[in-house]
Amino acid sequence: MNGSGTAPAAPTPPRPAYRRLGVEERRTQLIAAALVLFAHRPPEEVSLDDVAAAAQVSRPLVYRYFPGGKPQLYEAALRSAADDLELCFAEPPTGPLSGRLAAALDRYLAFVDEHDAGFSALLRGGSVAETSRTGAIVDGVRRAAAVQVLTHLGVPEPGPRLRMTVRTWITAVEAASLIWLDEGKQPPVTELRDWLVEHFVALLTVTAAGDEQTARVTRAALALEPADGPVGRLARRVTPVVAEAGHLL
Amino acid sequence: MNGSGTAPAAPTPPRPAYRRLGVEERRTQLIAAALVLFAHRPPEEVSLDDVAAAAQVSRPLVYRYFPGGKPQLYEAALRSAADDLELCFAEPPTGPLSGRLAAALDRYLAFVDEHDAGFSALLRGGSVAETSRTGAIVDGVRRAAAVQVLTHLGVPEPGPRLRMTVRTWITAVEAASLIWLDEGKQPPVTELRDWLVEHFVALLTVTAAGDEQTARVTRAALALEPADGPVGRLARRVTPVVAEAGHLL
Repeated sequence: MNGSGTAPAAPTPPRPAYRRLGVEERRTQLIAAALVLFAHRPPEEVSLDDVAAAAQVSRPLVYRYFPGGKPQLYEAALRSAADDLELCFAEPPTGPLSGRLAAALDRYLAFVDEHDAGFSALLRGGSVAETSRTGAIVDGVRRAAAVQVLTHLGVPEPGPRLRMTVRTWITAVEAASLIWLDEGKQPPVTELRDWLVEHFVALLTVTAAGDEQTARVTRAALALEPADGPVGRLARRVTPVVAEAGHLL
Repeated sequence: MNGSGTAPAAPTPPRPAYRRLGVEERRTQLIAAALVLFAHRPPEEVSLDDVAAAAQVSRPLVYRYFPGGKPQLYEAALRSAADDLELCFAEPPTGPLSGRLAAALDRYLAFVDEHDAGFSALLRGGSVAETSRTGAIVDGVRRAAAVQVLTHLGVPEPGPRLRMTVRTWITAVEAASLIWLDEGKQPPVTELRDWLVEHFVALLTVTAAGDEQTARVTRAALALEPADGPVGRLARRVTPVVAEAGHLL
C-alpha cells in the first residue's frame, strides 16, 4: 500500500533516465498523463497501470506520488483541468460584450472538445469517481465563470436577479455542451458558440424587462454592440419572426 | 374494520393494526414515509431506523420489503418522486403556450419547494446515494419533460436546434430551481415562474432567428398569445430596454 522506502527490484525499468525529474516536475507529468487518459474515457475505465504506462514509469512510482491511488490522482487531474477552465473566461475587458463572450466560449468549447468523454462522465453524475470534493471543484469553476461574466458586465455587486441570470446561463452553457457531445459534436462548434452568445443576450434582455440593475447593464452593453456584429445580425434576424406579433405591443 | 388478524404478543406494539396492510399497500406506505424523510434531509442523514419509525413499523419489516436496505429504498422513493414530477408537464394542449408552461412550472416548483433538501442533495452531485441508476431516473424525468414541452409546441419530430433549445431550457429550469433554494427561496415563486416562462420565450425567439422549424413554431405560438398575457406584458417591458439600440436594426 504505502511503498515508502522499499525500492522495488523491477527487472526492466521502463526508462533508465526517469529519475532525473524533480518532485514537482514528476508530479506535473503524472497529472498530465492522467488527465489525457481521464479526458477520453470514463474514470471507471482508467487504471493506475494505464497512467504508469502513459507516463512511462512504474506503478509503485505513481503510488509514491499519489498514495491515495486512483481517487487522489483523479482529483488532482480534475483540479488541474479546473484551473485551465477557470482561465477560459479571463478575457480582456475591452470591446463589445458579445465578442468577449464569444472568445471565452471558444476556449471553453475547445476544452469540452478535447476532454469529451471525461467531461460527460464527470458532469452526468453517478460516476464512481464523483465525491463531494470533485463536486466542489466543479462548483468552483462555475462560480469563477460567473464572477468573470459579471466582471465583463461591469457589475462588482450584482443583485439577486442578475446573479441568477448569469448562474443560470452558465449552467445552460454546460448543459448545451453535454447535448452537443451527445449529438456527435453537432452543430459545428462556431454555430453552438454563436447560439450561446445569443442565448445570453436574450436572457439578459428579458431579465432587464423586470430588473433595474439588469436594465442599466443591458442598455450599456447593447450601446457598444456594432451593427455588423453578432447582436446586430441577431436583431435583424429576429425582426421578421416577431413582425406578425404586433398585437402584443 | 375487519379485525380478522391474530394479535401479536409483542410487549408494546407500535400500532396493533399494522399487519392489516396488504403487500402493495405496505410497500407504498414505506416508500411514502421514506420520501418524506429524503425530501427534507440529505440521504446521508436518513437511516432505515428513521424510515421504520416514521412508518411506525419495525426495522426488520422494512428490510423484508427492501432487502437491499437504504440504497434500494432511496431508489424506490426517487422512482416514486420521478413519476410525480413527470406528471407536472402534462398540461391540456389548449390555450396560449405561456399559460401552459406557467401551469406546468407551478407544479414543478411546488414539487421543488416540498422536496427542497432532497432535491438539492440529489442534483448537486457527489451524494453517496447517487448511482448510475439514480442518474438514469433523473435523466428520464428530463427527457419526459422535453417530450411534453415539444408536444405543447406541436412538434412531434423536432430538428436538432429545437431539441437542443428545449433540453437546454429544461436544464436551466433545474439550475434556477437549485439557485432559488440556495437563495432561501427568493424571489417569490410566482416571479421565478414568470421569469422561466420569459426565458423560454426569449430562447425560442433567438433560436427561431436561425432555424426555420423553430421560426414556424415561434410565430404560431406568438400569434396565440393575448396582448394582456405574460408575453404581451414582456414585449411592452422589453421595448424601452432596446429602444436606444436602434443602431442594431
